[in-house]
Order: sequence, then C-alpha cells, then structure tokens
Amino acid sequence: MKTLRVNLPRPSVSYDIHIGFGILDRGVFMIARSGWGRDYTVVSDERVFHHHGRRLMGLLADMGLAAQSVTFPPGEASKTVETALAVARALAAQGADRSSALIALGGGVVGDLTGFVAAVYMRGIPYIQVPTTLMAQVDSAVGGKTAVDEGGAKNILGVFHQPKAVIIDLELLETLPPREFVNGLAEIVKYGIIEEPDLLDLLEANRKALEDRDRDFMTTVVSRSCRIKKGIVEIDEEERGVRRVLNFGHTVGHAVEAASGYVIPHGEAVAMGMAAAAGLSERLGHLPREDRERIVRCLTSLGLPVALPAGVETEAVMEAMKRDKKKEGERINFVLLKRPGMPFINGGVPPALVREVLEEGRS
Amino acid sequence: MKTLRVNLPRPSVSYDIHIGFGILDRGVFMIARSGWGRDYTVVSDERVFHHHGRRLMGLLADMGLAAQSVTFPPGEASKTVETALAVARALAAQGADRSSALIALGGGVVGDLTGFVAAVYMRGIPYIQVPTTLMAQVDSAVGGKTAVDEGGAKNILGVFHQPKAVIIDLELLETLPPREFVNGLAEIVKYGIIEEPDLLDLLEANRKALEDRDRDFMTTVVSRSCRIKKGIVEIDEEERGVRRVLNFGHTVGHAVEAASGYVIPHGEAVAMGMAAAAGLSERLGHLPREDRERIVRCLTSLGLPVALPAGVETEAVMEAMKRDKKKEGERINFVLLKRPGMPFINGGVPPALVREVLEEGRS
Repeated sequence: MKTLRVNLPRPSVSYDIHIGFGILDRGVFMIARSGWGRDYTVVSDERVFHHHGRRLMGLLADMGLAAQSVTFPPGEASKTVETALAVARALAAQGADRSSALIALGGGVVGDLTGFVAAVYMRGIPYIQVPTTLMAQVDSAVGGKTAVDEGGAKNILGVFHQPKAVIIDLELLETLPPREFVNGLAEIVKYGIIEEPDLLDLLEANRKALEDRDRDFMTTVVSRSCRIKKGIVEIDEEERGVRRVLNFGHTVGHAVEAASGYVIPHGEAVAMGMAAAAGLSERLGHLPREDRERIVRCLTSLGLPVALPAGVETEAVMEAMKRDKKKEGERINFVLLKRPGMPFINGGVPPALVREVLEEGRS
Repeated sequence: MKTLRVNLPRPSVSYDIHIGFGILDRGVFMIARSGWGRDYTVVSDERVFHHHGRRLMGLLADMGLAAQSVTFPPGEASKTVETALAVARALAAQGADRSSALIALGGGVVGDLTGFVAAVYMRGIPYIQVPTTLMAQVDSAVGGKTAVDEGGAKNILGVFHQPKAVIIDLELLETLPPREFVNGLAEIVKYGIIEEPDLLDLLEANRKALEDRDRDFMTTVVSRSCRIKKGIVEIDEEERGVRRVLNFGHTVGHAVEAASGYVIPHGEAVAMGMAAAAGLSERLGHLPREDRERIVRCLTSLGLPVALPAGVETEAVMEAMKRDKKKEGERINFVLLKRPGMPFINGGVPPALVREVLEEGRS
C-alpha cells in the first residue's frame, strides 16, 4: 500500500491518500482507529452499493462501528440539490449530528455530492472518500472540491471541504465497465500533458497492461496521478491561481458535456477539450505542431475521442462556454500549452478561433 | 466611526467591522475601493429593502458600481434551501460568476442566508454584511456562521464563511420596531453574562438612553458587544471549543423557538434560555443565588421574558432539545456559569432537572 500525504496550509485539514490493491479492509481499520466519527453513514449510488456496499458495511460492522447507508439512483442526474437534501434529511432522521461522519462510496457524482452534504450538514462534518471509478480515484476524490448541479449548470453550488482520507482500492475497479475505465484515462493523460509528459509515453508503451488493468501498472499510474494532483492542491487549495491548470481541457470539456445534455461522459468530453486546447495553443503560435499531434495520438491510442461527435453542434458548445463557471465577467479562461508540461492561462482567446478549431477537429 | 479588526488564523479571511451612526455612505465607499466584486448583488427581504434598499442601490450607483438586487418575504419562514436556491438562480440568471460579490442588507435571516449562498455559489464568492437589526448588528453579522433551516431543524445546513466586511450603521435601527430592538438586547446581555458582567450594570443604569436609542450609548454598547464576540471568534473560528460559550442560553432558547413554531423571536427565547441556564447553574451548586437573581433582574428590567409563556409546553421544549444541533450522541451540552463572566460547558445535566427548572420559572 502506498500512502501520500496532502499537506495543506491548515495542518488540521491535511490528510492521507492510501493506494493499493485489496486495501479496503485496511482502510476501514484506519477509519476505526481514527475516531473521525461516533457513527458513520455510507453514501452511495444504487449500482455501486449493489457491487460493494454489503462488503463495506460488513467491514464496518466487524470493526464495531455504528454504520448506516443512504443510496440514490446512479448518474449525473442525481447530482442535485434535491438529492443532497434527501441525504441530509436521512441523516437528520437517523439522528446524525456533529459527531457523525460520512463515507462516500462511488464515482465522481457520489464523491462530489457526499462531500457537499458533509460540508454543509451542521456547518461541516468529516467525510472519507472511497472512490470506485478510475475517474474518481485519480481526480475527483482528491482535493476537496465538492458540488451539486442546479438548473443545468454543472457544479454551480459547492464548497471546498477536504476529506479526512482517500482510500483508493484498485480492486474495486474490477466491476467498472470498459468505457468508464477509458473515461478515467483522460484525466491521467491530462496530468501527463500539464506536468509530466513522460507519463504519456508510459501510457502508450503499456497499452496491454492498461487493457489488462495490471495491478502493478495501475498502482503506478494511479499513484503518479494522485501525486501530481496533490502537489498542485497543496500549493493552491482553493483554485485562486496555479490549480486552474488542472482545468486543462475542461473549458471546452464542460461545454461539450452541457451541450450533450450530460450524455457524453466527463472524461471523453475532456479528451475532446484537450485536443481543442492543444489545437488553440498551436494556432496561437505557442505549441509546436508535433506536440499537438503527440497529444492527439496518445488520446486516440487509448480509445478517447478527440473531435466533437455528429450529435453535438459547435454553436451549442460555444453557447455553453459562455455560461461556464470559470469565466470572469466576459472573459473565458483557457488553459493553453507552451509545450507539454508547460501550461498557462489565457483569458483572451478569440471565440472565432475556438469555433474554427472545434470545426477543424471534426474533419 | 469605530473599526474593529477580526484577526483570524488565515490572514486572508480576516476582516473589519465598522460601527457608527450614518456611516452607510462611507461603507459603500470602502466597498468601491476594495475591489471585492466586479459587480454586486444586494440580497434583502422585502420589508428591509422597502426602508433602505433604494438608498443603498443609489449609493452603489453613485460609486459607479454595477449592482442588482434580489429580495424575498421577511421572516424565519424564508430561511430555507428553497429561498437560497431562488437567490442562486437569480444570480445565475444575472450572469454572476466568481468575480461577483453579495451584500446582505437585513437582519439575521437575510445575513445567514446570504452568507450561505455566498459560501456555496461557485464554491464561494465574497459577501459584505450590512445588518439592519440590533440582533444582527451585535451577533449574527459577525463571525461567519451561515445557515438555512430545513425540515423544521434550524440552521441544520450551513458553513463557516467569513464576510469581507461588516458595516454597522446604527442609523438603520431607526426603522426597527420596539419589540425587535428589545429582542437584540438579549444578546448584549449574553455578552455581559459570559464575559463582562459590568455590561449588565451599564445596561440597567442607562435604561433611558437605551429607550431613546441614544447615539453615543448605542455606539458604546454595540462596539463592546462586537469586540467581545470577535475576541471569541478569533480564538475559535469554527466553534470547536471556547466559541461554544456564545451559545449561553441557546440550548433552551433554540428549543423554545422550535416548540413555538418560531413565533417567539430568537432574542426572547434566548432570554428565557439564559434564565433557565442560570437556574440550572444555581441548582447544580455552581452559581450563587444572588448572581442568578441579578441576571433575571437585568433581563426583566430590559423588557425581556424569563419564563416560558403559557402557550409553550415544557415537554415540547424537552423534545426539541433532543434534536438540537449542539448535542453529541445522547449528550446535550449546556453552557452553565460558575459566576457571571465564568461560563463552562456541561454535557451531563439531568433532563429531569431541566424540566424542573423550566417549570419553576413559570410560577
């Protein structure tokens, strides 16, 4: 088991990320020893709970911990204020108070929503992330971003609220459908592009190990991703500056998700967004052509899309971008590249050029 | 104008409280100079906005600040997730983003709710408190506690989110009905009881000045209250320890509010709760009888109630206490007194004794 410490300016909110294969029982042991909660509520979606819920509840019971569970239907459509309220009401009905804690068992939707409820229930109770998708393991479970959607605006309500621990058991990925696995690879590619370009070579050179979800290889790749993310979060917990580079590919990505009515999964949309950001970087004279091609090749070789699909109109994506949370006034901020490993923020990309790059990508 | 600095462990969230008579224009000037927001949304209730909204909007416009407003019906019934969502939707519709800021113009309901929306909108935007009730000026506007009610549970959803500034213009109190003015006095008495007992003497000796809402006297009393509260918040921003003494009178107080269906105003309920807490302190052998009598006399002389009214059943209060946010597991925490100025937390008060003291108070 690997352990990475996320060291934050307020030491009291620093925490550990534990990564390994079949470590869920050790994770629950650590929870039992921690004293984070007088009692625990496992929050999950119905599909994940079906696969892993009974085991987790059993482990908690074995450790003598009082535990209950709340579940909701899977999917982005559940990531709403209404679901958050339903979870909060369930907590209140179960008598949860400031000495209670939550365990988020699931993917990004479960983790973001559980974190949000933990942040606002009685002005904040502890929570533990147990991510069950590759996307959540390498990205959303780390860093304390919590949120729910509202009125079609993704993540529009949320807070920064760090978990007490992130327990990444790679064994839980075994029930993950192939498309969701590939979806998570997009964020790993992102870390390679913005911080450690040799990660791209590693992914391309080990496609077989990836396909087999080889234990050692996955441990390496997930650990490297978490290490990169934690390093950035440590410097800029609340995304006032450098953390914004983690949004590489996300300006277009979020807009694609919105324009598709959240039918296109986050990772695939971000892959399209990364290809577009690389294209913009090249067209604005920052990124050499071969670097853009390398990025597109890596995404494609992993089975990720790099162009908008036929069903998504370019204009719908342009419209969605105007409503993006990352805009400031009329400025839409893009993360662009000088070269792989050297991202920068550009708030002055002409919309016409964005449109052109998106259209070009289709052909 | 007096200015008190609230110095917090994270210097970036420290802020000033400005107190004076007729200082709203100076406050708006400070907002204009601050750069807290690219644009501002004034959040208020319809009654307060009727009295003071046009003036504030005019001052903002005079300073060349882009400003809009959102209002909702006055009263505790508005302090809900639904109202918070309605405000958030209005912000989104107006194109508010991370560079926008809110101004809370109103009493405790407006301040708590606006702070909550500011805390969760796009993971946190700045807000400024402009309290218009005595209760809000001496208590709720300072300290960053934000919240909304849900399912009959008061303040069950909230976060700690400090304002960028608190602008206390005592002139705004001129439109405050007498009963609401007296309501605010309860929290001032609380500061006297828990921290500076001579404040009780000052209040009793200057009843005429209080009745006249004398400018100098009110400036003194409000400033002292804010100074006491800020001193405690500085030590314990998120109420893990000493800040809990600010809940003196609130264990019973909140229960009385709930049992009355929030018909009894917060300050009056807290006054009853303070009398009960003093009674418990005496019965448990901590507080000399004459000190309890002094507290009851001070409350009574200011026109505050010290006993449950006929319409509120003791059992309903006992039941409501069990659902209190301040409980931990089965423990209900009371703030008791060794003597005025020496509060302490006691989690082991027998329910039978609480019942007895509440009943005795009636006769």
